[in-house]
This record gives sequence, structure tokens and C-alpha cells, in this order.
Amino acid sequence: MTTNEVGVLVVVLVEPQMGENIGAAARAMLNFGITELRLVKPHQPWPNKRAKALGSGADQVLDGAQVFDSTAAAVADLTRLYATTARHREMLKPVATPRQAAIEARRFVAAGERVGLMFGGERVGLERDDVVLAHTIVTIPTNPRFYSLNLAQAVLLLAYEYAMAGEAEPARERFDTGRTRPANRGELIGLFEHLETELDEAGFFDNIKEKRAAILHNIRNSLQRGALLEQDVRTLRGVIKAIAGKRIPGSRRAKAAAKP
Amino acid sequence: MTTNEVGVLVVVLVEPQMGENIGAAARAMLNFGITELRLVKPHQPWPNKRAKALGSGADQVLDGAQVFDSTAAAVADLTRLYATTARHREMLKPVATPRQAAIEARRFVAAGERVGLMFGGERVGLERDDVVLAHTIVTIPTNPRFYSLNLAQAVLLLAYEYAMAGEAEPARERFDTGRTRPANRGELIGLFEHLETELDEAGFFDNIKEKRAAILHNIRNSLQRGALLEQDVRTLRGVIKAIAGKRIPGSRRAKAAAKP
Repeated sequence: MTTNEVGVLVVVLVEPQMGENIGAAARAMLNFGITELRLVKPHQPWPNKRAKALGSGADQVLDGAQVFDSTAAAVADLTRLYATTARHREMLKPVATPRQAAIEARRFVAAGERVGLMFGGERVGLERDDVVLAHTIVTIPTNPRFYSLNLAQAVLLLAYEYAMAGEAEPARERFDTGRTRPANRGELIGLFEHLETELDEAGFFDNIKEKRAAILHNIRNSLQRGALLEQDVRTLRGVIKAIAGKRIPGSRRAKAAAKP
Repeated sequence: MTTNEVGVLVVVLVEPQMGENIGAAARAMLNFGITELRLVKPHQPWPNKRAKALGSGADQVLDGAQVFDSTAAAVADLTRLYATTARHREMLKPVATPRQAAIEARRFVAAGERVGLMFGGERVGLERDDVVLAHTIVTIPTNPRFYSLNLAQAVLLLAYEYAMAGEAEPARERFDTGRTRPANRGELIGLFEHLETELDEAGFFDNIKEKRAAILHNIRNSLQRGALLEQDVRTLRGVIKAIAGKRIPGSRRAKAAAKP
């Protein structure tokens, strides 16, 4: 068992049946930046047109794929090997979730190891003789009553977790406010008072005076739930102004305006 | 905005083009226990045979799918809505990773809210008018140079994260040792001494006596790296015994046995 200086993650597909699924798996790999693919006894001739078609441009992965006659030969240079399988729980081998395996694998690769993620064929999955070559089993926690994932989906989830393990989860991204900025308290209060004045002028509280304070609190709270931007405040004040300006004759302001 | 008593997660596919992809998306949903599907203006007639075929048995999801004439109608009863899109970063809206969105969504559903995960069609993705209905954008962190995921893959990743968010990550599973148990120190030492005795008897160290201690340390270390089980120790001792028993005539023991 030798450790090369540059670590690498390799995807090993054992006896894949359909070129389509190899292509879809290659696409899923490249979606998350994994490029090294090995095939053990693919059932269809290789290279394969359907693989290219379903790869949707993942040629870098497909053209570089290596083909082997046995699983043992395909994994010979790897220092760690994960077997993705829902079965074989009878084997005396540790079982990891995709996330746990990805975090571990990333650490091994960073330390210069050559790490394999092995997947079985579409029908039968990995045989016992293949699983036994792995140091750890990875089981994807699917719905027990509907657990069958297709090959590319399984590859996708492992590749995704491997990519996610590469970076600390970024902080919940603050949204880009562009040329504006969150409204400050003064602007919000200006908005509240503008709205409240217009409601008073419109006679909104005339028959429910005892509820005025509670209603205004509710409105103030509701307007603060969305983290308004300064631009939003200006827009809303424009809206209020526009609506108030169109108030039908007979309203308090209309009457006041009508006074000589 | 009303909150129903029983929270639910709904997948909304806006203008999906191919029945196949709706089927594959339904399969991905059910793989992770999500059952409520809504379709906005699917391009092919619904129900759809290809959807059934690619659903691989996710009939519960497909048969219950609701079809709507507009995105607004499809999301009207939802209290939160995530738009999965790689574009539209110009919108003044928060952006979350799938993991962040899943954790949040799970919290909303637990609180009785109706939460939507919205996906666009295969070609064009979500239109601006759809994205604007969402409270948050979800962007899957794919390889910037090869970022295009198919519809079912995107649904799969969100469904997977939603399921994973439902349970605290389990501790790295200890492997089930069945009827055996990890070997104790005494059994390991018994194995070491058995092996060492046999090596001595076989004359293994005869010409390298000065290296004996270092070699035995290495062997002891190597035999402890794999966390041997009690059963493994018995097996290995059987192996040693068998090999020693077949030692060719001329070895030390063979000579001793040959003495009258």
C-alpha cells in the first residue's frame, strides 16, 4: 500500500450495464468537480455513444475513463475504498453516511491518499467479492419503502457531498442589495407615520378608535418582518402618496382641500 | 398568509417539458419521503406514460400530482417558497445553499407551515415572474465550469438535504459485530506470541537477529490497525497453525519432531 504525493478521488463503476448511465454518472461527477472515472467490465463496448450523449459535455471525464478487467485491478493503487451499497450489512465493516464518508475521504485526499468511491451495476449492485475490498460501506439513507436510486443519482449524491465537504458551509449569504441598503429606523418611522397620517385622514379608525393603537402596532410589525430596503421605503411611500392622492371626494382631506 | 395546522413540503415544477423528467423527479422525491407534487403547465399531456415509466414505481407521487394553469395558483396556499435557480442573482432576495434551505424549510414545516420548493423547466429554468414569488433563492453549488444539472438531479439534491435535515447526523455507525466482539488485549497478545513463536521456530530471524525487535513491533502494530475482532484472532491463529503445520521438512520444528 503506497501513498502518492498528490491525493485524488476516483469513481469506480463496477460492471455498469448501460452507456447512458455511465454518461449520466460522468455528468454528475463533473457537476461537482470530480474527473477521474474507472470502469470495471462495462457490459457495453467502450467508448460508447450513448454515454457521450447522456454525459452532456462531460467529455473530460468520459475520454479519460480507464477500463479494467477486474475490480481488484481497478482499485489496486487506491489506499482507501468506499463501497456504496444498501445491502451487505452482514459484513463486518464500518458503515458511513455519504456525508461522513465525504468528510473522511476529503481528509484522506488532502493527506495525499488515493481514495475510491465504488458503485455497483444498475441491477445487482456490488457483489460480495467487491464489497469486501472496501474499508468502509457507504449507505445512502433513502426512504426504506422506496429506496432504489439509479446509478447516476447515487454518484451525484456522493459527488455533491464530497464538494460540500471541501468548504466550510458558507454563512447564510446576505443578499446583494445592489445600489441600495437596508432601511434605517428613521426611514421606517417616516414610512409608518406617513401611512398612519393617511389612514387617520382617510377616516380609517373613525368607528374603531379603541383599536387604533393595536392596529397600528400590527402594521408596524408587519412592515418590519421583511427587512425593508431604503428603496422599498421610498417605493412604499410613493404608493401611499399615489393612493391617497386618488382618494375619492368626500374624504377628510378632500373636504379640507375644498375649503376656501 | 395563513398557516395550516399540519405543515407540508410541496415540490412545484414550473413548465416541465418532458414526462420522463417529471417521472424521474417524482422518483427522487419519494426516495427521500416527499410525496406532494404540483405541476404548472406541463408541456406534455398529463397524466403521462413516460412519467410513469421513469417514476419506477413512484405512483403515489405521480397519481397525486396536481396540475395548475399558473405558478401563482400553484403556490397560493404556501407560506414559504424557495426558488431553485442558478440565475436571477440580480434580484434583491436572499440566496441559500440547499442545506441551509432544507434546514430552514424543515423548521417551517415543523411549525405547521406549507412550504414549496420550486423548479423551472429543463431548458429555460424559472422565469423572473416565478422567482419573484419566492421568499428565498436556492442555488446548488455546482462546478462553475460545468454547472448544468438536470431537473431530477436538482430535485434529488434538495429532497436529500430535506431528509438529512430531519435527523441529527447519526454518529458514525459502529459496525455490527454480530455474534462476535472486538478482541481484547489478552487475545491480541496471545496472537502476537503465537505468531512470534512460529517465526522464531521457522528461523525467520536467523540472519537478521538485530532487526527482530523492530520487525516484531511492526507486526504488532500492523495487526492492531484494523481493530481485530475476537473471531478474527481465532481465524488468524488457525491460519498460523495451519501454515506452521505444513512447514517443509528441514525446519527447526521438523528437526525437533524428527528427534527420537
